Amino acid sequence: MRVLGIDPGLTRCGVGVVEGMPGRPGKLIGYTVVRSDPDEDISQRLLHLDRTLATLVEQYQPESVAVERVFSQHNARTVMGTAQASGVAILAGARAGLPVQTYTPSEVKAAVTGSGTADKAQVTAMVTRLLKLSAPPKPADAADAIAIAICHIWRGGTRSLLQAAAVAAAARRSSR
Amino acid sequence: MRVLGIDPGLTRCGVGVVEGMPGRPGKLIGYTVVRSDPDEDISQRLLHLDRTLATLVEQYQPESVAVERVFSQHNARTVMGTAQASGVAILAGARAGLPVQTYTPSEVKAAVTGSGTADKAQVTAMVTRLLKLSAPPKPADAADAIAIAICHIWRGGTRSLLQAAAVAAAARRSSR
Repeated sequence: MRVLGIDPGLTRCGVGVVEGMPGRPGKLIGYTVVRSDPDEDISQRLLHLDRTLATLVEQYQPESVAVERVFSQHNARTVMGTAQASGVAILAGARAGLPVQTYTPSEVKAAVTGSGTADKAQVTAMVTRLLKLSAPPKPADAADAIAIAICHIWRGGTRSLLQAAAVAAAARRSSR
Repeated sequence: MRVLGIDPGLTRCGVGVVEGMPGRPGKLIGYTVVRSDPDEDISQRLLHLDRTLATLVEQYQPESVAVERVFSQHNARTVMGTAQASGVAILAGARAGLPVQTYTPSEVKAAVTGSGTADKAQVTAMVTRLLKLSAPPKPADAADAIAIAICHIWRGGTRSLLQAAAVAAAARRSSR
């Protein structure tokens, strides 16, 4: 399963692509940070993000997209821009015909560190370890996006296995 | 000047198209409300909004797009969805190569009623009067979008006139 994870943001939007299966070490395929200038017009910033994400989806051909959910408790000054960027990020997956899942920051942290309240350094350290990287991803903003992709593989994967098991069980029952 | 105004929302997104010039009565070209089901997946809802807005821009051929700005003080339960919808709305204009302006709710209210704290009924009444409509727009959600378009014509128009005047003044100075 190849997943493109997105940590939405207007000034910096992290993108990480991971291939893997639940319970096995994943493989980092690529990552980047999409940037835009805070002094630029909001419409041009969103357009740049939209175009770059479309190019990355085309380039990496993921099977699904995972986006971190934005909460209003976040930094109030930037939260609206982050939410607008998350709308564009979710749309990028949907427009490519891919399933899109969203995860809360604590779901992502818990998936990679075991704790929903882990800090940024811990997330980066675990991403580096889980994917057997020789060094932490740089820029650090990308680590969160990679963690989101890992979270989706583990959780989404588990979900897929459970669904498959339920379907198999139903088939067994009906064939008796 | 033909303007497509958007009052962003996920469940109901108002769209109003007005043609006019500052200080003259405008003409209502069309309006609609784009709806999506709150039970549906967020990615499908944003995709539906994106596609419908692209169709409306294509259909009405506006010269610019005006979008109401979203604030975090709004209803906290729905504000993130509204912000995501506003990102998609701004993007719809940018992707069509159109200039996009955003206006605060009080700028819009002040432009049509003279008061930044006017209520919804007052805005609807003034939109009906300013555009010489025989009845208030239905559904009422569209009235705000029409008001945003009127606001842009009046304010954006004034801005264009000021810019043109400044350019003309500079030309006169340099030709002396």
